[in-house]
Amino acid sequence: MLKLCDIGNTNFSFDNGEKFSAEHFDISAIDEKVYYISVNHYWEKRLEHEENWINLRSFVDFSTYYETMGIDRVMCCEALDNALVIDAGTAITVDLTRNGHHQGGYIYPGFLAMEKTYKNISSRLDVSLNFDIDLATMPKNTEDAISFGVIAPLVSYIRTLADKLPIIITGGDAEKLQNFLPCAKVDTNLVFKGMKKIIKEIQ
Amino acid sequence: MLKLCDIGNTNFSFDNGEKFSAEHFDISAIDEKVYYISVNHYWEKRLEHEENWINLRSFVDFSTYYETMGIDRVMCCEALDNALVIDAGTAITVDLTRNGHHQGGYIYPGFLAMEKTYKNISSRLDVSLNFDIDLATMPKNTEDAISFGVIAPLVSYIRTLADKLPIIITGGDAEKLQNFLPCAKVDTNLVFKGMKKIIKEIQ
Repeated sequence: MLKLCDIGNTNFSFDNGEKFSAEHFDISAIDEKVYYISVNHYWEKRLEHEENWINLRSFVDFSTYYETMGIDRVMCCEALDNALVIDAGTAITVDLTRNGHHQGGYIYPGFLAMEKTYKNISSRLDVSLNFDIDLATMPKNTEDAISFGVIAPLVSYIRTLADKLPIIITGGDAEKLQNFLPCAKVDTNLVFKGMKKIIKEIQ
Repeated sequence: MLKLCDIGNTNFSFDNGEKFSAEHFDISAIDEKVYYISVNHYWEKRLEHEENWINLRSFVDFSTYYETMGIDRVMCCEALDNALVIDAGTAITVDLTRNGHHQGGYIYPGFLAMEKTYKNISSRLDVSLNFDIDLATMPKNTEDAISFGVIAPLVSYIRTLADKLPIIITGGDAEKLQNFLPCAKVDTNLVFKGMKKIIKEIQ
């Protein structure tokens, strides 16, 4: 069976659900072949000469992406031929794919980052986002005015952009975002699905 | 002639265009009657017992607003009976008024605050916003992906919300925002117009 790993700045995440701290990860514990992607520069460099660790970055056709685009974001797009692909985590990336080609995408700050932004503007705006907010009613208090400001433009624009395309959401905040997009599907395995597709193409 | 002053955290701004640092402002230099609003708690308290300084806050009918709403934002809404009122500064406030009544509003971070947000997420997202971006084309590089992420959802939602109402923009970043909303009007005197309206009502 294939072993897949998504290396982030904090964790090594395997497709069987196992997670290990990137700081203390011991590669000698794994003898099998591992297909991986990494946004973690240290580990990408470190694994270059490990024969059983295969970096999938080199097999991606970057002609429709751009070079500085996060490789995890690329894999999510690889997983879906026609979709609006959203990765809701530290940042919220929104990408459009049509007929297997990336049409472009944009980056919105993640929910936690947005909370910090308001707090930094003024202590009076230091509130937790309210994910139960009703987007059909204009807010009349600070907490809702902020939650609405973060969520309403984001969600409304995603709907406009998706038009009739399916909306697929992955990432740690996928369910929070899906609350406001009942038509969207959550798929927490999007990165690994993209990786599997690339592996199939190169085998 | 009336003398009006908008006291912020940084400046005393008079309606004749004069600005003075809030830190070193000398009230003894002004003998005339001054109608003012203040988001600066220190100065609001300090001016309470100065007979020639009239705080307009007490004359606002707060029944359609909410108590913690910034008094400068309230004044902008007072200035317009039927409009989508935007104050684009440190934060971007978007308020809806109909028949002279505030329908509610929301708060989006200002452009500078958003730049800082991305920078704090990752040094790879540390870019200046590109205000020449074309919102009709999905971005294919990091700088545009961020600028698009900040501007496209904001502007698109403002258009949806305004429907047929006029869009009036005030604040330091009014012109930057108007670039993307050619139908909108910039009015840098909105706060003072609201103040004058209140003064007329109480005289």
